[in-house]
Amino acid sequence: MRAKVTVLGLGPMGAALASAFLAAGHPTTVWNRTPGRAGALIDRGAREESSAAAAVTAGPLVVICLVSYDAVEEVLAPLSAQLRGRTIVNLTSGSPVQAREAAALAQRCGADYLDGVIMTTPPGIGRPESLLLHGGAPEVFAAHRDTLAALGDPVHVGADPALSSVYDTALLSQMWGTLTGWLHAVALIGSDGPGGGVTAREYTGIADRWMGSVSAFMNAYAPHVDSGRYPGGDFTLDLHLRTMEVLSHASELRGVASGLPQVFEELTRRAVDAGHGDDSYARLVEFMRVGGHV
Amino acid sequence: MRAKVTVLGLGPMGAALASAFLAAGHPTTVWNRTPGRAGALIDRGAREESSAAAAVTAGPLVVICLVSYDAVEEVLAPLSAQLRGRTIVNLTSGSPVQAREAAALAQRCGADYLDGVIMTTPPGIGRPESLLLHGGAPEVFAAHRDTLAALGDPVHVGADPALSSVYDTALLSQMWGTLTGWLHAVALIGSDGPGGGVTAREYTGIADRWMGSVSAFMNAYAPHVDSGRYPGGDFTLDLHLRTMEVLSHASELRGVASGLPQVFEELTRRAVDAGHGDDSYARLVEFMRVGGHV
Ligand SMILES: NC(=O)c1ccc[n+]([C@@H]2O[C@H](COP(=O)([O-])OP(=O)(O)OC[C@H]3O[C@@H](n4cnc5c(N)ncnc54)[C@H](OP(=O)(O)O)[C@@H]3O)[C@@H](O)[C@H]2O)c1
Ligand SMILES: NC(=O)c1ccc[n+]([C@@H]2O[C@H](COP(=O)([O-])OP(=O)(O)OC[C@H]3O[C@@H](n4cnc5c(N)ncnc54)[C@H](OP(=O)(O)O)[C@@H]3O)[C@@H](O)[C@H]2O)c1
Repeated sequence: MRAKVTVLGLGPMGAALASAFLAAGHPTTVWNRTPGRAGALIDRGAREESSAAAAVTAGPLVVICLVSYDAVEEVLAPLSAQLRGRTIVNLTSGSPVQAREAAALAQRCGADYLDGVIMTTPPGIGRPESLLLHGGAPEVFAAHRDTLAALGDPVHVGADPALSSVYDTALLSQMWGTLTGWLHAVALIGSDGPGGGVTAREYTGIADRWMGSVSAFMNAYAPHVDSGRYPGGDFTLDLHLRTMEVLSHASELRGVASGLPQVFEELTRRAVDAGHGDDSYARLVEFMRVGGHV
Repeated sequence: MRAKVTVLGLGPMGAALASAFLAAGHPTTVWNRTPGRAGALIDRGAREESSAAAAVTAGPLVVICLVSYDAVEEVLAPLSAQLRGRTIVNLTSGSPVQAREAAALAQRCGADYLDGVIMTTPPGIGRPESLLLHGGAPEVFAAHRDTLAALGDPVHVGADPALSSVYDTALLSQMWGTLTGWLHAVALIGSDGPGGGVTAREYTGIADRWMGSVSAFMNAYAPHVDSGRYPGGDFTLDLHLRTMEVLSHASELRGVASGLPQVFEELTRRAVDAGHGDDSYARLVEFMRVGGHV
């Protein structure tokens, strides 16, 4: 039989989590502060409890997904007797500091704790490609990995419960970089002018293939950042800067706002002016750290 | 037997192209303005001609890769008799306007013409994942696709020879968006503080998986751009803006420069202020078109 799971919180996300556990065959107990939200889940076999205290005693794993860490504390703090020996997986969004505080609360209760973030929206829950990131003791993650896989692709990011929240922010930063760069590209190639008028759909089909190369760059540059050595090879900052100037010029010609290319160009120019024109793009990381570059 | 190929220009890129054709078994004739650069290629079976006129008559396909379109014109203009009935694939970097001019020159010579861009550096030539984009008549591309596949992944981007150059600029814009977002993420997660100190290599392993989701967003948003309708679903601009504020705050706390998050936030705030808070991220494309939004 599949492991028993308790889900606390039946907002849009909590309900999606409970639904995915049910779909994967886990006996699922649910609780929500405001009763009456469990209807469709009960029809599919969930058991609803009228108190959080009763709900958490249903099994070894308690997944909690509420509006805020304050709400999590409000719900969990009174349950220290019931939580002892169980594992809490907190999928509520919050800050790194809040994650550490929640981990400390769990420890006082004698419970194991994983702090998770969900990198998708409710309809993505249960799809094998949806990332869920977890910080906390690796053996706790290992013990529940298979159960968490009902929700998506569960990844362990490290022993520090603060990590998942920082990953969340970092990955979103990268997402906005990509999507904003993509929108800039789409605006450029969709505009009037020679070689313009391309639809976003056409462009994106090719951009998809290109993203494979971009990922290869990322992976090649990661060791540069870690070692503080940035060999430019045949794609140096000098060459980046020259082609960035082409982008700025093309954006101007085609009436596309220059905010994004300006950020690239200014950052790159600073590094080139500081004598790093032969280095790889990874060198720019030093110019992103405030006051980090002398 | 494999199709015969002529390569004009033996700079680092031209030499890599000739080398890949040889590796794929194509009888390869080469020419370079300055003689004596073909040594290693001749050892591997290439035939060197001392004039471009002689080189282009070796076979039906002429690949040209020089420093500039001016150099291309200088080399090709005197060869109109020899070029008649052949196909020129011009892999020199230039502007959309230059591509159209080169196409017109080819037409005057009675030659077919594809304008290509190479989305990799010389060591990437010959790898099946390296993108080469070609604009020009689809039947001309189709006739030479298999030969061009010796160089990488040949893609036809449309009938207009100006397209490949615009794609080049657009894809680089998207690359810089991704890489700069990635560097911001790496700086953030590598900095001191709770959940910090993560290496670029560790982060990038997880970022790789996340990029699959980001590509899914791109593909979901492309039809929004094409239709001018931007249903926000469960990931609205309001939600983006709130999480962007978290990124700005975290960047400040951790001493990471705020240039990039500011661009995201300002753009998003303009759209939200204009009443589009319920829309998807794709709505921002309208705020990238200068004067495009009323
Ligand atoms: N929705 C998404 O796309 C998404 C994506 C990633 C992460 N998340 C995160 O998932 C978490 C839950 O999000 P959601 O979309 O389900 O909706 P939500 O509106 O953020 O949270 C609603 C849930 O919180 C409960 N709650 C609020 N205050 C409470 C309190 N003081 N005590 C007990 N329970 C309380 C609500 O109970 P009542 O029904 O009684 O009000 C309800 O179960 C959030 O942290 C969110 O950031 C959501
Ligand atoms: N290298 C890369 O990473 C890369 C990547 C993508 C695209 N590209 C593009 O590929 C093209 C070639 O680049 P490259 O790296 O091989 O080196 P390059 O320095 O851009 O070009 C050198 C070639 O151009 C020839 N050339 C220059 N002026 C000429 C003229 N007036 N008449 C005839 N030939 C002339 C040179 O001949 P001589 O030996 O006689 O000087 C040599 O064959 C460029 O357009 C570049 O943008 C390069």
